[in-house]
Amino acid sequence: MWRIGEDDVERLADGAAVLGAGGGGNTYLAGLDLRRVLRQAGPVTVLEVEEVPDDAIGPVVGGMGAPTVGIERLPPAGRFGDLIVRVRETLGRPVDFVAIGEIGGANALRPLTGAGETGLPVVDADPMGRAFPELQMSTYMIAGLSPDPVVLNDGKGVTAVLRGAPDGRTAERYARALTWAMGGNAALSLGLVSGRDLRHSGIPGTLRLAYRLGEQMAAARSRRMPVADAIAEVIPDRVHLFQGKVVDVVRRTTEGFARGHVIVEGLAEDKGRHLRVDFQNEYLIAREEGEEGAVHCTVPDLLVLLDEESGRAVGTELLRYGLRVEVLGLPAPWELRTQAALAVVGPTAFGYDLPYRPLAGDLLGRPQPRASSAAASH
Amino acid sequence: MWRIGEDDVERLADGAAVLGAGGGGNTYLAGLDLRRVLRQAGPVTVLEVEEVPDDAIGPVVGGMGAPTVGIERLPPAGRFGDLIVRVRETLGRPVDFVAIGEIGGANALRPLTGAGETGLPVVDADPMGRAFPELQMSTYMIAGLSPDPVVLNDGKGVTAVLRGAPDGRTAERYARALTWAMGGNAALSLGLVSGRDLRHSGIPGTLRLAYRLGEQMAAARSRRMPVADAIAEVIPDRVHLFQGKVVDVVRRTTEGFARGHVIVEGLAEDKGRHLRVDFQNEYLIAREEGEEGAVHCTVPDLLVLLDEESGRAVGTELLRYGLRVEVLGLPAPWELRTQAALAVVGPTAFGYDLPYRPLAGDLLGRPQPRASSAAASH
Repeated sequence: MWRIGEDDVERLADGAAVLGAGGGGNTYLAGLDLRRVLRQAGPVTVLEVEEVPDDAIGPVVGGMGAPTVGIERLPPAGRFGDLIVRVRETLGRPVDFVAIGEIGGANALRPLTGAGETGLPVVDADPMGRAFPELQMSTYMIAGLSPDPVVLNDGKGVTAVLRGAPDGRTAERYARALTWAMGGNAALSLGLVSGRDLRHSGIPGTLRLAYRLGEQMAAARSRRMPVADAIAEVIPDRVHLFQGKVVDVVRRTTEGFARGHVIVEGLAEDKGRHLRVDFQNEYLIAREEGEEGAVHCTVPDLLVLLDEESGRAVGTELLRYGLRVEVLGLPAPWELRTQAALAVVGPTAFGYDLPYRPLAGDLLGRPQPRASSAAASH
Repeated sequence: MWRIGEDDVERLADGAAVLGAGGGGNTYLAGLDLRRVLRQAGPVTVLEVEEVPDDAIGPVVGGMGAPTVGIERLPPAGRFGDLIVRVRETLGRPVDFVAIGEIGGANALRPLTGAGETGLPVVDADPMGRAFPELQMSTYMIAGLSPDPVVLNDGKGVTAVLRGAPDGRTAERYARALTWAMGGNAALSLGLVSGRDLRHSGIPGTLRLAYRLGEQMAAARSRRMPVADAIAEVIPDRVHLFQGKVVDVVRRTTEGFARGHVIVEGLAEDKGRHLRVDFQNEYLIAREEGEEGAVHCTVPDLLVLLDEESGRAVGTELLRYGLRVEVLGLPAPWELRTQAALAVVGPTAFGYDLPYRPLAGDLLGRPQPRASSAAASH
């Protein structure tokens, strides 16, 4: 058990932005919202998965929408707390904790906001180890847990409760349509998990990972050291992929997603090369520009574009011409590398005719599980 | 009080198709579904509005979606009954009756299906006196009644409950998006009405009107008399507008609606003329084709295209080249002619820079209310 207070928010936000792989929502406004709540309510308790009783239950909470939509104004206060109240009413019983739906970007912060508003603890685990654009892309859904009930809150007084969605894809389709009608952005609770579910199907320790990343990045900035080195302190398996300047951004917000690609022109050792990074809310594939360009990193491994000036990870919604970036690859957690998981979160799930080319290692630095079918690096 | 049994369905369906003004859903498959339910459950009781206690309440029920979507397969059995059960669960109390959300087309039949499946009576009133494409186009919404709760059922096991929608337009936006995600077609309950609401804000007697229309039309067909004359027996204020052959249909199903127009080439007395009828699910405006063409009929008055061969009203989803039709205009009920109503259901509400040109009389043959601000004919 540990606690997250007002003064921890900036570090957590910086680390979560790295794990966002370009998505998960902009952490700036979500961070302001969380700080306001923690100032009033005091620190939120964080439980390790081992500390949660088998039958304790909690809603799986996050924000839904294209990251391009949520960056213009402060989100309405209280919408995550109201969401959790609505889940409780729907169940007709209390819940024991708030579960994190996505550790990347603003979605690392929103469950804490809801927890602070309702006096509940948060559990340190999530079903992605990063951010993903669609609801079925979750180790809970891949393990066959139910998305029921799906609860959405538009932040303007309207809540929606969907009952009976048989799987994550159905939940995704309905919740996406509703989120779009809600202005492109909604607070979401997707099903319930028990303590047992968290241990069997979650990725443990990702909230602490985000916090440690942010902590090391802040320390590096204050010592004027390279932020990429700070990330390597926490994730030794991180890979430097490219260094350069953004020279083109193609982006459209369509069907509830921000889709497009960015071209980075090489500088220093990468002079003369051009890297193309495709995205759907999150960065998906990095390869040399041009036909048959060599592929350097594929989803579910994490692509991170670090702004060299600010030392912070750049979300797809903030890409702009002239930005100088370092492109890093982080290995996906083992849980995303099983055959079952890759069918849902691998390159083919995003329409690419590409195999997954795993980076070596594990996001959380754990040894490869022996009896697993997880794809190792090659 | 009266009853509707299995053998009444065909007449009711034929009359409701006339009141659909081209929309409200195709009555053929909805009629099969209703007959199946009434065969099992026996006749449904119909209450007059005067018979409903002030504080009795019921959900306002209908189908939502573009009429082009629902014509391919039999709707899933039980979805209107399940919908009403979900309303009851949401309220945590029983309901006393089923209210009709739209008397036009299949939507006249669906509340009876739900009533038969749940053993409830139906009340003979609706908030349109016809069919309209959008949820705010209802005398209940125009009177300021709440659309809360909005309940949808996809017929495949998923229900959605929206709470807190402040008005019909918000309910429309959210329910339309969800209906589209549900495959273009959903069972809908929009708010609750009391006996008092039905009397103050409903249009009474429209179910009986639909039944009488169908009864006269069947009688005319069996005597090989013109069906238009049968309609005149029930609605003396009906106006013959045009006779001809469909020579062009432009239609696209977009944003959850079937939008387009049909061109009818004049025959007999109308030879040499072309009538253009615009539609959005329902027929909206009839005018001579060409720039500055004279306007003959405007929404909320009802436009009816009668198929001369079958003697039945043609929905916008069944328009096709070569169809011989008689075009009739029916005056809207007085309730749709107040200034408040015309702001929501008049031509400008559909984007036309046209005044409402009321046909003389009233759909239900009632004298003009004295103290009303209803637009009379000119």
